[in-house]
Amino acid sequence: MNPQVAHLPCMRHFEITHGVLTLGGHPLTELADRAGGTPFYAYDPTALDARVGELRTALPPDLRLHYAVKANPMPEVVRHLARRVDGFDVASLGELQRVLECGGAAAETGFAGPGKRDPELAAALRAGAVIHLESPGEAERVRRLCAALDRTARVTLRINPDFALKGSGMRMGGGPQPFGVDAEQAPALLRQLADPAFDFLGFHIFAGSQNLQANALIAAHDRLFELAHHLAAGAPEPVRLLNIGGGFGIPYFPHDRPVDLAPVAENLAHWMERPGLVRDGARVVLELGRYLVGEAGIYVTSVIDRKASRGRTYLITDGGLHHHLAASGNLGQVIRKNYPVAVGNRMDEEAVETASVAGPLCTPLDLLADDIPLPRAEPGDLIVVFQSGAYGLTASPTGFLSHPPPPELWVGDPVMAYNRTDDTSA
Amino acid sequence: MNPQVAHLPCMRHFEITHGVLTLGGHPLTELADRAGGTPFYAYDPTALDARVGELRTALPPDLRLHYAVKANPMPEVVRHLARRVDGFDVASLGELQRVLECGGAAAETGFAGPGKRDPELAAALRAGAVIHLESPGEAERVRRLCAALDRTARVTLRINPDFALKGSGMRMGGGPQPFGVDAEQAPALLRQLADPAFDFLGFHIFAGSQNLQANALIAAHDRLFELAHHLAAGAPEPVRLLNIGGGFGIPYFPHDRPVDLAPVAENLAHWMERPGLVRDGARVVLELGRYLVGEAGIYVTSVIDRKASRGRTYLITDGGLHHHLAASGNLGQVIRKNYPVAVGNRMDEEAVETASVAGPLCTPLDLLADDIPLPRAEPGDLIVVFQSGAYGLTASPTGFLSHPPPPELWVGDPVMAYNRTDDTSA
Repeated sequence: MNPQVAHLPCMRHFEITHGVLTLGGHPLTELADRAGGTPFYAYDPTALDARVGELRTALPPDLRLHYAVKANPMPEVVRHLARRVDGFDVASLGELQRVLECGGAAAETGFAGPGKRDPELAAALRAGAVIHLESPGEAERVRRLCAALDRTARVTLRINPDFALKGSGMRMGGGPQPFGVDAEQAPALLRQLADPAFDFLGFHIFAGSQNLQANALIAAHDRLFELAHHLAAGAPEPVRLLNIGGGFGIPYFPHDRPVDLAPVAENLAHWMERPGLVRDGARVVLELGRYLVGEAGIYVTSVIDRKASRGRTYLITDGGLHHHLAASGNLGQVIRKNYPVAVGNRMDEEAVETASVAGPLCTPLDLLADDIPLPRAEPGDLIVVFQSGAYGLTASPTGFLSHPPPPELWVGDPVMAYNRTDDTSA
Repeated sequence: MNPQVAHLPCMRHFEITHGVLTLGGHPLTELADRAGGTPFYAYDPTALDARVGELRTALPPDLRLHYAVKANPMPEVVRHLARRVDGFDVASLGELQRVLECGGAAAETGFAGPGKRDPELAAALRAGAVIHLESPGEAERVRRLCAALDRTARVTLRINPDFALKGSGMRMGGGPQPFGVDAEQAPALLRQLADPAFDFLGFHIFAGSQNLQANALIAAHDRLFELAHHLAAGAPEPVRLLNIGGGFGIPYFPHDRPVDLAPVAENLAHWMERPGLVRDGARVVLELGRYLVGEAGIYVTSVIDRKASRGRTYLITDGGLHHHLAASGNLGQVIRKNYPVAVGNRMDEEAVETASVAGPLCTPLDLLADDIPLPRAEPGDLIVVFQSGAYGLTASPTGFLSHPPPPELWVGDPVMAYNRTDDTSA
């Protein structure tokens, strides 16, 4: 099997049947038929459940697990997780509506984002969701909306900490940030939140994302809990909610190793047993997106053409960056690296050549894999991009070059297909 | 006025009314009302017409001008250009259908792309469009489809030249490429095209895009015409069509200067007057996308919040990378640079501060401008991103974080709004 995928944790959940990658008993070739052809995304509930199970086993029992919908808002994914996690985090009114449609509870849903519009805030107030306040201006807008709607706002204060999560794929705390209020500005704003418009619940502190290093996560959690204890002293009410963000990464690239959960969980347990905060009644929320769903999804595209150009072999596929921008290296990556890619109907064949996988768009950016070892693939073969359950389809420019958007398959019982509509498509 | 936009060529077509940027006599504030709020895109036919006029004046009269629809497939843009250009280039069946719906002629439309699917090729054959063949495998598929459909295929051979367009934003020729066939492979494939299935028309040769240097364009055209003359000797029929691609850039960044058209046009005239090819009846097509529409469009978003974080001022807007990925620096840019940005309702105010413009998404990638000089902007003010007519909305991940897609305004007479639907939106 392709060494680029053999080590992937998701391969524990997928099978290989006569050389064909198989999810939940359904070989890719069958899934392609159900999707009406290629390209398509497929999400495996078995892999989702396994990930939730690992977390529940490792983490302190009173740590609450939330799903960050932005990673993948596909309805079946949200509906499935609604019965398995303790709440949701959303970043728009659209995401809040998706959660409510899919059985999530507004009371256990937090709404974060540096630019929430008034209609979004009003809808969150009416639904009774928790609003993570991100600035003095936003606090004032919420206060006015509370008066207009005769509501009390359940709020936390989102803090931009004075530290970063080291080694993160994306830094979201420390230094200047559009997110939250700087830790040093928090005490002044906390005094303003002592207002009957607000039901002050606590803090949201998030320092980075896509981190694979247990030591870095532990160090960030240490500083985060210290900061929360410090800020709690100036809070208008006892802290009842502490959202510690997420940041747990998944392995994408050859030398990436999965997060070692045990020491991270042990450190969280230590903090939750300390006097103050949690012992005084605060609930701690871990908010995971990519870590929950990233490994449960694949993107599948067919080889349309095989061609040689000046010493390089190209497999040209019917899918590409318009469906999977992150895999093309154009979503925040500074240096392009290959996602794990295999020939899904030749999983038992050894790699015999080096090939590049290029999508159908008329742009050199449309590259799904650059010079990777693969079995020899021919037109009609299925190329699989692994680790595609998070920041896949919705993080991609589906209208680019006016191709139809791909269906998303939920490989449950029964298998369900979800089709986004987009009038830019053919 | 903000020095980052004062020099922009598009400012010749836009006006400023009481400090408000005005397109076609409509101040932005009025356009925002027509759009039902912000964010929105707006496209100005005056700027489009001016650009077409400049090209017609400068270029040789028998040079044919095509619009590359991928730059912006908005229906009114395509409909307007259908009456002003000589043909279109499309990169998918969806784009071909858009052209036909908007009054373009299939016979004057070329279909390029390294991964055309069989149903796309069949539709192009039925419509009578020109197919730019990109590989031996594709030629064989077209030949079989011709037999099945009892059609003759009007084709060119797309060539990956043995040179690149130097200094391009994107290199699309020279070295190994997924596009076309290597120039040195062309003679063998040309022999296969001597088949009754094919009505061989000529060549498509394209070496790069977004180039501002006249000298580089001239050097590339020189090599391109030499190559075309050379290849014509081995063609199965006399060359009747030579598509020389585009590659003309527009200025995005402070030190960018517009292309000096005159010497480029003069050189093209020289080649078109030379014996062979054109003198023997070949039509030469210049295929422009970004250069035609890029300067005619703006993206407009409102300031929701103004906040300070550790010495930096952030203007948080209701629009961002989900609508304008390129402006956030995540569409092929290696080093992030700021698009030209201004406060659209304070165009007559001097810059008094340095601010960053960040969108509403919960990701540090959602940055529309990083530390630029601006007048002091407050919530409700309108931020304008210029040079947004090409590779804007359709090149963006509109479903990311499930915000509604923005309308696109055609600022003609009457003003028309076009709403893409996307079921990932609120």
